[in-house]
Amino acid sequence: MTRRAFLAASALLSAGALLAPMNAQQPPASAGPMDSRLTEDLVAAYRILAQHEVVDGFGHVSVRHDRSPNRFVMSRSLAPESVTAGDLIEIDLDGNAVDARGRALYSERFIHAEIYRARPDVRAVVHAHTSSLIPYGVTGVPLRPVYHMASFIGDGVPVFDIRKAFGMTDMLVSDAVKGRALAQALSARTCVLMRGHGVVVVGPSIPIAVGRSIYLDMNAQIQTQAMTLSGGKVTYLDPEEARKMMDAGENRGYERPWELWIERLRMQIR
Amino acid sequence: MTRRAFLAASALLSAGALLAPMNAQQPPASAGPMDSRLTEDLVAAYRILAQHEVVDGFGHVSVRHDRSPNRFVMSRSLAPESVTAGDLIEIDLDGNAVDARGRALYSERFIHAEIYRARPDVRAVVHAHTSSLIPYGVTGVPLRPVYHMASFIGDGVPVFDIRKAFGMTDMLVSDAVKGRALAQALSARTCVLMRGHGVVVVGPSIPIAVGRSIYLDMNAQIQTQAMTLSGGKVTYLDPEEARKMMDAGENRGYERPWELWIERLRMQIR
Amino acid sequence: MTRRAFLAASALLSAGALLAPMNAQQPPASAGPMDSRLTEDLVAAYRILAQHEVVDGFGHVSVRHDRSPNRFVMSRSLAPESVTAGDLIEIDLDGNAVDARGRALYSERFIHAEIYRARPDVRAVVHAHTSSLIPYGVTGVPLRPVYHMASFIGDGVPVFDIRKAFGMTDMLVSDAVKGRALAQALSARTCVLMRGHGVVVVGPSIPIAVGRSIYLDMNAQIQTQAMTLSGGKVTYLDPEEARKMMDAGENRGYERPWELWIERLRMQIR
Amino acid sequence: MTRRAFLAASALLSAGALLAPMNAQQPPASAGPMDSRLTEDLVAAYRILAQHEVVDGFGHVSVRHDRSPNRFVMSRSLAPESVTAGDLIEIDLDGNAVDARGRALYSERFIHAEIYRARPDVRAVVHAHTSSLIPYGVTGVPLRPVYHMASFIGDGVPVFDIRKAFGMTDMLVSDAVKGRALAQALSARTCVLMRGHGVVVVGPSIPIAVGRSIYLDMNAQIQTQAMTLSGGKVTYLDPEEARKMMDAGENRGYERPWELWIERLRMQIR
Repeated sequence: MTRRAFLAASALLSAGALLAPMNAQQPPASAGPMDSRLTEDLVAAYRILAQHEVVDGFGHVSVRHDRSPNRFVMSRSLAPESVTAGDLIEIDLDGNAVDARGRALYSERFIHAEIYRARPDVRAVVHAHTSSLIPYGVTGVPLRPVYHMASFIGDGVPVFDIRKAFGMTDMLVSDAVKGRALAQALSARTCVLMRGHGVVVVGPSIPIAVGRSIYLDMNAQIQTQAMTLSGGKVTYLDPEEARKMMDAGENRGYERPWELWIERLRMQIR
Repeated sequence: MTRRAFLAASALLSAGALLAPMNAQQPPASAGPMDSRLTEDLVAAYRILAQHEVVDGFGHVSVRHDRSPNRFVMSRSLAPESVTAGDLIEIDLDGNAVDARGRALYSERFIHAEIYRARPDVRAVVHAHTSSLIPYGVTGVPLRPVYHMASFIGDGVPVFDIRKAFGMTDMLVSDAVKGRALAQALSARTCVLMRGHGVVVVGPSIPIAVGRSIYLDMNAQIQTQAMTLSGGKVTYLDPEEARKMMDAGENRGYERPWELWIERLRMQIR
Repeated sequence: MTRRAFLAASALLSAGALLAPMNAQQPPASAGPMDSRLTEDLVAAYRILAQHEVVDGFGHVSVRHDRSPNRFVMSRSLAPESVTAGDLIEIDLDGNAVDARGRALYSERFIHAEIYRARPDVRAVVHAHTSSLIPYGVTGVPLRPVYHMASFIGDGVPVFDIRKAFGMTDMLVSDAVKGRALAQALSARTCVLMRGHGVVVVGPSIPIAVGRSIYLDMNAQIQTQAMTLSGGKVTYLDPEEARKMMDAGENRGYERPWELWIERLRMQIR
Repeated sequence: MTRRAFLAASALLSAGALLAPMNAQQPPASAGPMDSRLTEDLVAAYRILAQHEVVDGFGHVSVRHDRSPNRFVMSRSLAPESVTAGDLIEIDLDGNAVDARGRALYSERFIHAEIYRARPDVRAVVHAHTSSLIPYGVTGVPLRPVYHMASFIGDGVPVFDIRKAFGMTDMLVSDAVKGRALAQALSARTCVLMRGHGVVVVGPSIPIAVGRSIYLDMNAQIQTQAMTLSGGKVTYLDPEEARKMMDAGENRGYERPWELWIERLRMQIR
């Protein structure tokens, strides 16, 4: 490159950098400030999931924006236990941040974006690598409701194997196409296992998505014990029993434990 | 409905609302204030059971009123870890609160009511979804005493399957008829498993019901390990050994650990 | 009984009560104050064993008195986690307290007494109901050293079944005859399992008996995992490897972890 | 020995003692002060590994000196949870301390020395007795990546059996010859199991070696569950999937959890 060409290129790059906000690459418009209760609940959700070891240094939870069905909010790329309100970022259904201000985004935000697009009923999404659940994604053993607290999986839990549609990958759902395939595997269910990776749990509210994530973990732990104990001869909830439990209010909307979990955060009890 | 009929109905409804306390729907009379030691022990029991993970955000414990065998006391609908003396409510054997003051009751209070009715010797009842116990309710593998601390199950642990008497349900024991069936399954034993749901443990005092709940959990954990290790070839306590242990004072009435558990509450140690 | 006979009997009882200290029932003489370092270590041992869940509300540890081989010291009947120096009681090898001052003794102090009598090399004894160990006492599966930290069981772990010598009992080793039988089962080993009950671990010092108790628990947990994983095909330490490890200083006398455990007590870290 | 010879010998010994620093036994020269960030990270590593129960009272971690590839730094012989900057000692690749000042060294420092010698790419080494890993060293069951967080073992985990090359030993890698054999077994991998002993994990940085140690533990726990659940029929990561995950940045260099672990140390949260 000649010196002249080099300077021209430099100028272009600088201009590009300066003009970026006004470009085609322009970020989406904000839906405005989210309801403050949702913000509080979302921060609490990150911390509650970490305290229950549903997530560890990885994993994330999001909520659909109350002012626009085409926006959702989640943390910048950060360990769940550390998330505060200042870390939350508004994102559109293509995975673009409204105002990232240089903060890194979770590469798997497309899990959330595509589920919000496919499932209008969903208002909260959890993605985790919960250790009790991994075995049910890699063994062909179906995860089933072993007690009434897990009535939300009465219809079964599908397994998404990224290899089937995408061959050899780095296992991550880091673009819209893979997010869409995962959302299809989820279909109308409450959760979907990801082979060799983790789980996605959804719900009509933050407390319900969080409560389901915690009791799904508990159910997996119990089912593993029950199967080991009996050589696999386990009486699960009948799908109709599960349905009746769901109709009766699915663990009362997790209101009782949610209050407890919030209280524990207030007490700084880990 | 004519406008006149509507107004008449409205008046009736209003009057009904206003007169409710003086109605046939009138709450039962109180047996008077409960012994303060029982109140302290009951609040402690909720917290001790939570600290031992015998209960989580769900589950409850009650005590029979010392002034009337037809009254018992338990918390309003609340997570066990959060219960204080102000949350306690006196209830009669039909499940009616003496003075609920708008507070929600546990829907499964009928478990307690019907056991107090059927078992004059019982003074404390615990209901829990303890995870180690669920497998023994859904596999047909009998829970048996693997060590001397569990001598109180020397005569075996029955399993209550709500489906057998009531068909497809929401799994909850939320009325007197179901409570009675559960009490019948319990019979004269110290505890009864509930298929796909949890357990009920009873005792002649709060420390004994709590101690049994904690060591029943421990026994289940150990039995699962022993069965896994040996392919099921386990030497359990002989029923006569269990009886002799019971005659010798059943873990000395759990006095030693009860003191410890109370001390931990005082130290705010979780 | 006539009134006269009653009064005579009362007088006798009173006199007996008053004269008790000067009787044949007179307590044994004290060996004098124990080395203060041993007292500190013994209190620490109770708390360290509780923090590691080797003991719970039950279980005890003792040390042989440094001034007399015929005396040992342990807590009054109390949960291990609560023991302080003021709770320690000097006891002779017949299980009699030097100065109980009305405090209740552990009914199983005969475990300690008879082992100190039979094993002059032993200076500390732990009795516990450690949950990982119970399965190895009730299944016939031998507990063996799965890694170098458990070289002290290279010669195997005997199982004491109280039923074999004593038939149907309350399972407790609560007199000298049963204590002696247990000591015989222990023989020259470092520990002995008790069927349906627990374990006894001994050592030439408090840190070594405590260290062995903690790593015996760890070894059992690991062995159970290894056997489950492999269907029982496990390569254990060769007895000669175990012997060489013992000769090399058996985990350096547990000095490194003992310092850590003491430091944690100081930090009030549980 | 004559009196004269004795005095001569004494003089020699005294002189030898006084002159020791200038002798053939002279300690190696220091590479100078290590980068302060590495010192902070190394102290943090000890504590993070202890908090995750990857190490207990035993185990150690080291870092290669940033000023010389022939020096590394680790703690004096001390429980990991207690290590501070003042406990760190510079050591050469023959296992000699630069300035021990009478402090005891870890007898197994040769593990570290010989790996740093054999593997120029390695900048941090962890040695631990992690309980979940022991079974994979004694059963012949291969440890394999059950989820994407363990892509660093996509090429498998070798097992070093000290008995094969050295016959009956005390199991410890306490000299250079044994260290070299272990380094050979490690070869170009990220970790190596030690039969009946533990594991060594290496990495190009402290956070990566620590992160791998933590997720290797997690992977082993999950794999054991998966194998138990399914009778061994588990779908592992395909080696190519693992490679792609490694190429994509191996858990983003563990930056996200590392920040969290450091934050927890700051909060004094255990």
